[in-house]
Amino acid sequence: MVVDIDRDRFVATMQEQAEIGGTDDGGLHRLAFSDADAEVRDWFAAQLTDAGLDVTIDEFGNMFGYREGRRPDAGTVLLGSHLDSQPNGGIYDGAMGVVAALELVRALNDANIETDHPIEIVNWTNEEGSRYQPGMQGSGVWAGTHDIETEFAKTDTAGAVLEDELERIGYKGTVPATPQREYDSYLELHIEQGPYLEADDVDVGIVTGIVGFTWGAITMHGEADHSGPTPMHHRSDALVAAADVITAIRRIPNSLGRRTVGTTGYIDAKPNSINVIPEEVTFTWGFRDTDPAVIEAARERVLDEAELAAEREGVDVEYEDRMWADPVQFADACTEAVGNAADRLGYDSMRLFSGAGHDATHMADLMDTGMVFARSENGKSHNESEFTSWDDCYRAANTFANAAVDLATV
Amino acid sequence: MVVDIDRDRFVATMQEQAEIGGTDDGGLHRLAFSDADAEVRDWFAAQLTDAGLDVTIDEFGNMFGYREGRRPDAGTVLLGSHLDSQPNGGIYDGAMGVVAALELVRALNDANIETDHPIEIVNWTNEEGSRYQPGMQGSGVWAGTHDIETEFAKTDTAGAVLEDELERIGYKGTVPATPQREYDSYLELHIEQGPYLEADDVDVGIVTGIVGFTWGAITMHGEADHSGPTPMHHRSDALVAAADVITAIRRIPNSLGRRTVGTTGYIDAKPNSINVIPEEVTFTWGFRDTDPAVIEAARERVLDEAELAAEREGVDVEYEDRMWADPVQFADACTEAVGNAADRLGYDSMRLFSGAGHDATHMADLMDTGMVFARSENGKSHNESEFTSWDDCYRAANTFANAAVDLATV
Repeated sequence: MVVDIDRDRFVATMQEQAEIGGTDDGGLHRLAFSDADAEVRDWFAAQLTDAGLDVTIDEFGNMFGYREGRRPDAGTVLLGSHLDSQPNGGIYDGAMGVVAALELVRALNDANIETDHPIEIVNWTNEEGSRYQPGMQGSGVWAGTHDIETEFAKTDTAGAVLEDELERIGYKGTVPATPQREYDSYLELHIEQGPYLEADDVDVGIVTGIVGFTWGAITMHGEADHSGPTPMHHRSDALVAAADVITAIRRIPNSLGRRTVGTTGYIDAKPNSINVIPEEVTFTWGFRDTDPAVIEAARERVLDEAELAAEREGVDVEYEDRMWADPVQFADACTEAVGNAADRLGYDSMRLFSGAGHDATHMADLMDTGMVFARSENGKSHNESEFTSWDDCYRAANTFANAAVDLATV
Repeated sequence: MVVDIDRDRFVATMQEQAEIGGTDDGGLHRLAFSDADAEVRDWFAAQLTDAGLDVTIDEFGNMFGYREGRRPDAGTVLLGSHLDSQPNGGIYDGAMGVVAALELVRALNDANIETDHPIEIVNWTNEEGSRYQPGMQGSGVWAGTHDIETEFAKTDTAGAVLEDELERIGYKGTVPATPQREYDSYLELHIEQGPYLEADDVDVGIVTGIVGFTWGAITMHGEADHSGPTPMHHRSDALVAAADVITAIRRIPNSLGRRTVGTTGYIDAKPNSINVIPEEVTFTWGFRDTDPAVIEAARERVLDEAELAAEREGVDVEYEDRMWADPVQFADACTEAVGNAADRLGYDSMRLFSGAGHDATHMADLMDTGMVFARSENGKSHNESEFTSWDDCYRAANTFANAAVDLATV
C-alpha cells in the first residue's frame, strides 16, 4: 500500500504553523512555554480534533492525538516531533515532523484507510532546551529518564519556575506523563541539520542512529600579573594554555573517526582586561561520534592535551565532566521501513547517523525507533537561514508517511 | 650633601596611609574618586600643611604641596606619584612615591635645609584608571595630553559622571590643571612591578625610560552552526581562529626584543554556548618594548598571523587599533642623579626600563624626568600579594630623596 501526502495541503499547513511566532526574516521565535508556544499548541489541538483524533495533554504538556487501529490490541505507532523553536530559529526544525504526522492522518482519513496498529501523533514539550535545560525535556520525562518534579522546579534566568509557566500557558494536563498504552514503535521526521544528504545529492536520509557525546569543562588557573612589566618567561597565562587546548580540540577528531566532531563552544576569562595577564579561563569540550570508544578516546585526548598545555604554561588545570550520552542505534524494523518506503516512492536515499540529539533518543529506550531526515541547505539550522525546499520537505514527509503505514501494518 | 630619611617615621607614614581603604588581606582598595580616596586626600593635605607646605588643589583634583627654594627663580623640582589604588591592590604601588616625597620634605625641615630650587610634592588624580579610563589621567590632563572637559564628562559603568564624583569627594579645586610655575624636573619613586631587581639581587633601580606599546582588538567572524551535525570540514569556527592567534601572541615576542612582551588580556565569544560553534570572537593584543620599531613589527606580525588563522579556518577577520604609546627616554640629568645617589649611599643599583606606564610618562613631555624603582617581591603588583620589604622601601626612598636634593641643587 502506498499513501500519498497531499503536497499542497502539507505545504499550506507548514506555512500556517510558521506564522505563529514567525520572524520578519522568515524564521521562527517560538520558545517552549512562551505565548507563541501556547498559540501554536491551541492551533495544533484544533487540527488534531478536526482530524478526528482523540486529544490528550499530559502533566508535562506533551500533546497526543490518537487514531484507533483495526487491532486495538496491537501496539501503537507513535509519530511526531516538537513545535517549539530556538530563539530566531528556522521553520522546519521539529515542526515538519509534527505536520507530516498530521498530514499522514489526514491522508488516511481522506482514503478511508484503517491501519492495523493504532497511530498516535505527539508534540513533545521543550525539545530545544533554550530557556529551560535540558533539551528533549518532555520526551525525557515521558520516557522516565528525567524526574518530573525535578524538571517542574527548574527556573529560567529570570527566576520563572517551569511548572508555573506550563500552567500559565494552559498546558499542564492531567494525564500522567508516562506511556499510557502499549507502544509498538516511534518514527520521527526531522531536517538533517547537517550537510551529508545535500553533499551526496540524495533525496532523503534513513537515520540509523544518533551519535553519542561527551561534554565537559576545563579550567586553567594561572597568575594575574600586569601585562607590561611581567617578562614572558615569568608568566603563567591561563588564556594561552586554554588557546593551546582549543586548537587541539579542532585537531583531535582528525585522528579518530571519519565523522567525529569536536567543539569548544564556551569560553570565559578572568579578569578579562586588556592590561592584565588572564588568571582563570574556563572553556568547554564537546566530542560526538557513533562509537563510544571513540568518544572516550577523544575525552582522554583532550584531558592529556590540557595537562601538557598547563605544564608548558606553568598553570594548574582542573576539569569537570558535564554530560555523557551513549550513541543510539535505531531498530532494523524502522530503518528497513524507511528504506523500503523511499525505494517504493522512487527516491534516492542513504543511511546516515544523526549528529544531533532528538526526542527519538529517549524513545529508543522504550520501543523500536527510527527517523527520516530531510535535506538541509548548507546543513544550516538553529538560525533563520535554515532552509529545505518544499520538494525536499514533501519527499521526506511522503517517505515518513509510507514508512509509518508500513510499521502500522501487521 | 647627603639627606637621611627617618626610616621609622617613613615606615609609620606608609602604614598610616595603608589603613585608609586597607583590606583584610593587607592590601588596599582605594579607587580614585571613592570615599577612601577622599579620606586619604584629607589625610595627605593635613600632612602637607603640617610640613609647612603651601597646598593647592587643581580643577582635576591633582594635589600639590610647595616648598620655597633659596632661588625662587630656579625651576621647581616636582616629586610624587599617586595615592589611588587598583581594586584590591597593594599598599606600595603609587603611595610609596608620595610618602617618600613627604618624608624628604620632613627630613629637610628637620635639618633646616633650604634647597636651591623650590620643591613641590604632587599626588596625581586617578593613575590607576580602574573606574574611569584612561589611567595616568590627572597627570595627562595637567600635561595637556588630555582635554579636561573630555575627561570630566567620562562615566563609570554605573553612569556616574567623573566631574560629579570629583565634586562629591570635595576635590575639584579652583587652580587650573596646568603647570602654574616654571618646572625644572620631575622625579618619581615607584615599585618595579617586575622581577628584574630581585632576580639580579640589586637594591634599587635607575629607570632609564618607559616602554611604548600597541594595543588593539581582532574580531573573527565565523558561522554559528550546531556543534553536533556539522562536520569538521564544514566549519568556520571563530574561536579556533582566535585561539590560533592567541598562541602566536605568546610566541611573537621571542623573535623580537629581549624584553618584548605580548599579551591577550581580553576575549569575548558569541553566542558562547557549549553546543554552538562560535560565530564571533573578539580578543585583544598588547605588545610592549623600548624600541618603537619592535612594537610596530609585533603589531604587523599579529595582524599577519590573524590573516593566516582566518584563512585556515575560513572566517573573516577585522581589527581595530586601540592605543599606541611611544617609548619614553628619561633625561640623563635624572638617571645620573639617581645613580649617583645610590652610589653615595652604598646601594647596588642597575639601569632598567619600566615595563608599565607611570605618571612620569606625561611629565617627560614637559621637563627632565626620571624614576627610581624599589624591588617587588616576585614582581607582583595590582593585587594584595604585592610586597616590598621595609628595607627595600627605605633604600629606594633614600635614593630618591638624595637624587631629588641633587636635582634641587644648582
